[in-house]
Amino acid sequence: MTDLRFGIIGWGYWGPKIARNLDSLPYAKVTMVADLDTNRLAALTLNQYQTWVQTTTQVVDIFHSNIDGIVIATPVRTHYRLAKEALLYGKHVLVEKPLTDNVAEAEELVALAEQQQRVLMVGHTFEYSPAVNELRKLLQSGDLGKIYRIEAERVNLGLFRSDVNVIWDLAPHDMSILLYLLGKKPVQIRVQAHAHIQSHIHDDAHLDLSFADGIAAHIHVSWLHPCKIRRVTVIGDMRMAVYDDTSPAEMLKIYNKGADAHADPVISYRNGEIIIPYIDWIEPLRLECEDFANSIRTAGQPRAHGGIGLEVVRVLATAQETLEQQERQQVAVMV
Amino acid sequence: MTDLRFGIIGWGYWGPKIARNLDSLPYAKVTMVADLDTNRLAALTLNQYQTWVQTTTQVVDIFHSNIDGIVIATPVRTHYRLAKEALLYGKHVLVEKPLTDNVAEAEELVALAEQQQRVLMVGHTFEYSPAVNELRKLLQSGDLGKIYRIEAERVNLGLFRSDVNVIWDLAPHDMSILLYLLGKKPVQIRVQAHAHIQSHIHDDAHLDLSFADGIAAHIHVSWLHPCKIRRVTVIGDMRMAVYDDTSPAEMLKIYNKGADAHADPVISYRNGEIIIPYIDWIEPLRLECEDFANSIRTAGQPRAHGGIGLEVVRVLATAQETLEQQERQQVAVMV
Amino acid sequence: MTDLRFGIIGWGYWGPKIARNLDSLPYAKVTMVADLDTNRLAALTLNQYQTWVQTTTQVVDIFHSNIDGIVIATPVRTHYRLAKEALLYGKHVLVEKPLTDNVAEAEELVALAEQQQRVLMVGHTFEYSPAVNELRKLLQSGDLGKIYRIEAERVNLGLFRSDVNVIWDLAPHDMSILLYLLGKKPVQIRVQAHAHIQSHIHDDAHLDLSFADGIAAHIHVSWLHPCKIRRVTVIGDMRMAVYDDTSPAEMLKIYNKGADAHADPVISYRNGEIIIPYIDWIEPLRLECEDFANSIRTAGQPRAHGGIGLEVVRVLATAQETLEQQERQQVAVMV
Amino acid sequence: MTDLRFGIIGWGYWGPKIARNLDSLPYAKVTMVADLDTNRLAALTLNQYQTWVQTTTQVVDIFHSNIDGIVIATPVRTHYRLAKEALLYGKHVLVEKPLTDNVAEAEELVALAEQQQRVLMVGHTFEYSPAVNELRKLLQSGDLGKIYRIEAERVNLGLFRSDVNVIWDLAPHDMSILLYLLGKKPVQIRVQAHAHIQSHIHDDAHLDLSFADGIAAHIHVSWLHPCKIRRVTVIGDMRMAVYDDTSPAEMLKIYNKGADAHADPVISYRNGEIIIPYIDWIEPLRLECEDFANSIRTAGQPRAHGGIGLEVVRVLATAQETLEQQERQQVAVMV
Repeated sequence: MTDLRFGIIGWGYWGPKIARNLDSLPYAKVTMVADLDTNRLAALTLNQYQTWVQTTTQVVDIFHSNIDGIVIATPVRTHYRLAKEALLYGKHVLVEKPLTDNVAEAEELVALAEQQQRVLMVGHTFEYSPAVNELRKLLQSGDLGKIYRIEAERVNLGLFRSDVNVIWDLAPHDMSILLYLLGKKPVQIRVQAHAHIQSHIHDDAHLDLSFADGIAAHIHVSWLHPCKIRRVTVIGDMRMAVYDDTSPAEMLKIYNKGADAHADPVISYRNGEIIIPYIDWIEPLRLECEDFANSIRTAGQPRAHGGIGLEVVRVLATAQETLEQQERQQVAVMV
Repeated sequence: MTDLRFGIIGWGYWGPKIARNLDSLPYAKVTMVADLDTNRLAALTLNQYQTWVQTTTQVVDIFHSNIDGIVIATPVRTHYRLAKEALLYGKHVLVEKPLTDNVAEAEELVALAEQQQRVLMVGHTFEYSPAVNELRKLLQSGDLGKIYRIEAERVNLGLFRSDVNVIWDLAPHDMSILLYLLGKKPVQIRVQAHAHIQSHIHDDAHLDLSFADGIAAHIHVSWLHPCKIRRVTVIGDMRMAVYDDTSPAEMLKIYNKGADAHADPVISYRNGEIIIPYIDWIEPLRLECEDFANSIRTAGQPRAHGGIGLEVVRVLATAQETLEQQERQQVAVMV
Repeated sequence: MTDLRFGIIGWGYWGPKIARNLDSLPYAKVTMVADLDTNRLAALTLNQYQTWVQTTTQVVDIFHSNIDGIVIATPVRTHYRLAKEALLYGKHVLVEKPLTDNVAEAEELVALAEQQQRVLMVGHTFEYSPAVNELRKLLQSGDLGKIYRIEAERVNLGLFRSDVNVIWDLAPHDMSILLYLLGKKPVQIRVQAHAHIQSHIHDDAHLDLSFADGIAAHIHVSWLHPCKIRRVTVIGDMRMAVYDDTSPAEMLKIYNKGADAHADPVISYRNGEIIIPYIDWIEPLRLECEDFANSIRTAGQPRAHGGIGLEVVRVLATAQETLEQQERQQVAVMV
Repeated sequence: MTDLRFGIIGWGYWGPKIARNLDSLPYAKVTMVADLDTNRLAALTLNQYQTWVQTTTQVVDIFHSNIDGIVIATPVRTHYRLAKEALLYGKHVLVEKPLTDNVAEAEELVALAEQQQRVLMVGHTFEYSPAVNELRKLLQSGDLGKIYRIEAERVNLGLFRSDVNVIWDLAPHDMSILLYLLGKKPVQIRVQAHAHIQSHIHDDAHLDLSFADGIAAHIHVSWLHPCKIRRVTVIGDMRMAVYDDTSPAEMLKIYNKGADAHADPVISYRNGEIIIPYIDWIEPLRLECEDFANSIRTAGQPRAHGGIGLEVVRVLATAQETLEQQERQQVAVMV
């Protein structure tokens, strides 16, 4: 069997990481890298390990090559155009999150991929986290009981972006985790957001989501916080669970505690043990790259397929719309 | 100088704690306790230490006594009636937070206290926390620079209440801390809240507050969370600070880090040291009781005076109104 | 049934704490306190709650009173003399740890108590800790498997003492925990200790203990450390457990991990879940006081009876002897 | 300037890590790898990035090649023979720690390197840790005051070795840190060690070291512990510092606290702030590889030169000798 050949468009933060993971697969090889910045490409070729990788500033070189799969790791606004062209050239495509910055273009890409019978995948890395998958099993097995609410926090100082706000930058991760855990879409969304550092680019946002069956979710994303917090808390009526991505030795904690709503006349509480399951850790990005390569080889659908990417874009676009509407109306009550 | 005599109305959670602290003052003595529940009073008299304390189920006994100050530690809905009567009998009054459950009654109490020339104080215990006062100094000295935002979290499992929702129960603390830190009132408030356990009694709420000069604040209060979190994060353009009330050895952390908004073309970051100041700890409730007693002796105004209590009630009432309006209108956008 | 009457000798750090706990028992009452320092006694009588407690600087007043049980909370060197006299007066006695500062006097007290048919108890508070008792159950049930070793750390900055070294001051706690957990005595002891602050008074010590069946234990006690650490780690071949007294929410952690010694040719490892059991917390000092009072009422033997106190003194005395011998011989090898 | 060519002997745990770091240097290239295990070499050649690296099971191939520097990452007992041969072939040598397993051989290697005018370096990685270097600055500047003692802990479950005990496996790191921090050698050493899992191979050891000027140090190394601890605590009379290698965000904490030994009659305490300096992190292994390459280029002496390696071996050998002597004599006192 011949190796799969991959090209990377965009050699910034994610490009090299994805290349390293693709190359570590036994049957995959990165053969071309495109970036507009010749300095970045020069740095790459200086690195002796990659002397056989072709570099180019012309993205069309990648499209014209015999490459099987293309990774698009460029600014969001270019995702649609590059992914569309790649699909039209018959390439399989992995796009960094979010898939696009609007719903219509995401829909078009999903339809095009299906028509072209090519893999369209989006870089929702956390769907490949062993801890997130362990947490998902807890929800699906009923171990947590009826789910009341989920809270997700993803805050840190920086990196501020000037092309998109913090919702489009960080919330795709949490939205993809929520959709993956719950297996359903929100029916309502409210937004509280502020632009402190750059005018009109919100750097701190709280999203409140309502799902069917009374499930609520809350997402806090921020570029402006002293601590790095990456945490998802799931609150069920039988157990509660906290997934803390910054705590390698105790990434998932399951609390056997709860409030008994049906107690009468006063609510009673259960306080039981905490369990920290052992999680066999594999780098999520490696599993993501594996899923991309395997989906190409087997003509299968990757976990983070384009349709999921579209769903996330839909929720983000609704949040954005709500935010703009609020700012137009200033509906809030004055004290 | 004769001792000050105090009476306690309500011998539940707070009553005994406040009594213990008042009694530990050299010039103060709790001489009467009123509660409707005779079992509670019996437990009190069983305790040999308090054999000289009179107990009664008739609150009027306290009003008719030669007591100087009355502590009202009863359910919120009774605060107004009891405090009013106490003031009319010429007593000084410390009311547990929140002062009342509506603005009109709080206003009336403040006016009545002034007219009667009696101390009216509210149990905003955290205004007496040495850590909060250290944090306040950092804001006032300009050490944190221009303030962007403050985030407050106060979550835990329980205690669910059936008379008020989580906003009225827990947010008075955070509102009083915000007002105390910033020295100004919010101009706008938004609410995201859910009632998971008891119908119509919200047990999880996110409050978003806007102040003048672009300062934002966010409060998260919840009875439905696996972890006990009591944290206030202040984000300035020069430094950031985290006050964590559950971490006795590191209650206040000052981060010398920030984003430079004026850098061009890309935002630059500073990453400096973290400082954990040594804080000489005194139990806040003791300082609160001392302030109550001293204000009576000196005819002065306590830190947590009725006017502050009124401000907090104003914000809570606005939050409640916003919440009810939202639920009527279902203004949120459907996905 | 009439109340038990208690007298306290020594109104320093422990005296008031024990008095508070004895008084909180429904059938017990502290009626007399003796201390040489009239200032301490004055402070006590100022506190209105204790106006009926008699104070005295003459310890003989306590012996001559109708008191049932005496608590000796004085410097170690006075324990023997006071306890002996109290027993001779027919009183039941609780002595702060360590029981005495030498084996002969401890033996004499144990014999005297038996002869007088009076309770002799020592303040090994940690034997009453719910977490220690939970840990003991794990050892006794075989849940941890065969025990390899136990490590105990008890370090902090201060309080330096000038009458005894850190071994006599802090190690009684860890020795009593070890004896309580293992149910057997060490057969060998080695000491590494240093006197940094006061000459000849060791302020940092490492004790290495060997028990039958190849079990080893290590105790580190220090007055000279930046962090407060109070931790016991038990290492079995099936599971390992960490009891951390400074971490209220996670006081006991059970690790399902281990090394398989019998694997061939290489040692294999198991890595499983961590369990944090829920522990119903009661203040150990209260349980200790309850045990003292109950033992008096039922003529029973308290958990931390004199015989256990004697065992701890034996180990401490051996450690002290080893230490002095080492310093005389300077046996250590020069590099 | 032509690139430096490097060869790696031993493709186990450390070989690939060092190769990756050497290759990331702009002027260095790994060109040959030797290992007795053909499976390991096969895995290496499968990895497309390294197709130009020659592999061999004959170590002599490396000695005969035009390679400049050789990295010896093999079991300890082979260090001496391989390093000696490499030096005799005129190669520069980096040996994994410890340099050798006995003093005579380490002395011979140091002498041989000097005679051959070749770099002899040992893999004391922690001497290149930015946090250790920050800590060293604190000691050298006098910021900590007079040093009383240093404590080092390096414990975890596994990896058990069958060729050397835990002292030779883990303590080289802590010994090299101590020598690097204090700049002087211990004058006395005591050992407490136990072999729990494999007979006669100690898996848990406490080393007590005395230095001139009353400075003491303590090292605890273990393969048999539920938690991964890598911590060095330095206790001075002005300040204390804790370096925790497992805590990336707070790797170094400086405590402004201490005991005043000269206070009279009672020792007084200072409790001040804690400072966590910002440390610009670079992977220590990369700095180590850089130092090796630079020392070759400039004919200079690397920080972790052979002489330092010899000192560490001297202390380890003394510890081993003490241990064996103790076991022969069973000098410990019976309880």
